[in-house]
Amino acid sequence: MAEIVKLYGLRASRFSNRINIALQLKGVEYKYYEEDLKNKSASLIKYNPIHKKVPTFVHNENPIAESLVILEYIDETWKTHPILPQHPYERAQARFWCRFMDDKVMAAAWKAFFVKEEQKQGLEEVNEYLEILEKELKGKYFGGDNIGMVDITGNFIVRWIPAIQELMGVEIFTEAKFPKLGKWSHDFATHPVVKEVLPSKEELIVAFKRFLNITN
Amino acid sequence: MAEIVKLYGLRASRFSNRINIALQLKGVEYKYYEEDLKNKSASLIKYNPIHKKVPTFVHNENPIAESLVILEYIDETWKTHPILPQHPYERAQARFWCRFMDDKVMAAAWKAFFVKEEQKQGLEEVNEYLEILEKELKGKYFGGDNIGMVDITGNFIVRWIPAIQELMGVEIFTEAKFPKLGKWSHDFATHPVVKEVLPSKEELIVAFKRFLNITN
Repeated sequence: MAEIVKLYGLRASRFSNRINIALQLKGVEYKYYEEDLKNKSASLIKYNPIHKKVPTFVHNENPIAESLVILEYIDETWKTHPILPQHPYERAQARFWCRFMDDKVMAAAWKAFFVKEEQKQGLEEVNEYLEILEKELKGKYFGGDNIGMVDITGNFIVRWIPAIQELMGVEIFTEAKFPKLGKWSHDFATHPVVKEVLPSKEELIVAFKRFLNITN
Repeated sequence: MAEIVKLYGLRASRFSNRINIALQLKGVEYKYYEEDLKNKSASLIKYNPIHKKVPTFVHNENPIAESLVILEYIDETWKTHPILPQHPYERAQARFWCRFMDDKVMAAAWKAFFVKEEQKQGLEEVNEYLEILEKELKGKYFGGDNIGMVDITGNFIVRWIPAIQELMGVEIFTEAKFPKLGKWSHDFATHPVVKEVLPSKEELIVAFKRFLNITN
């Protein structure tokens, strides 16, 4: 059977972007559909009736939602360029750090950006979490010599945090404060595959301005 | 090398309980250490320096945190009684529903229980999510004929929600409203392995009274 691989996404979504990166790293051929969140496609609603969210990934008509779940599926299905280590303990470590990225780093950063009354606490937390990551990063990437699932999950540190901090005037991540993460961020963003699918900071600022109804 | 398996947990923790269930289902021999959250053990702090939380699982001195990450590790390491399906698509579905349990059902229920000003919204949400689960449940268990990771992750519906709703006077889950989930809950709680490690509703009420400083 010919493989039919489809991704319903949004270019400004860090979650969608993860799936683009993984598919491109593995050289999987797929059809990408850019969604309009104010007017979701019938296909998105059909394939993801519970959440109706991007990214929704469809392989031979089997839909999958949730970016981390999709990444695991992609890694189990297409073996080239593994994004999770092979050994169970290292896999567990990688999964732990992926959850840390989402549940800790992103949650705290978004609180600092968007919840006025919790901004101070959010800033303290995200600073602490980035310090933990700064210590944790030992190789070129969190995945070692190659980009792995933790790096892909951390895409929002590379482009989304820099864009939103510029837009909102709330400083979270700078190379001066986190030199190792700064170098990692640069290496990730300039990786030949990643750079093709990572939106630019400027593009994200425009998208978030529109999303947040900021008119100036 | 002899296997040395340790679990630092809390009997009243739904997250810890998941690990006990998985280990018991697989017949893994392990040493269980009950933690006192007001006076955490030096071992817990050593093995889980970032979160210092239960459950912390240690296999041959390698520590792992986060209940869903631990469950995946256990399933990859001990093959008897698999708790995730073998096929990648079914695995993805199971992972999706595990996240749905935690990020949707539990989050909404805890909001209804503990965030006064969001109680109404929490109740509506958790009701909607339980209806989705009621439709999704097709076999005896979410895992089919055998208990799987989705069932284990749903342990809080079986005992924690019933205990806390009685304690707080906020009704979320009843057999009358969700007959299929009610039967599932009964089958899960009376499973010969599960019933040995699942705390009783009464025990949880006592524990949560203490935890919430409720004195009556």
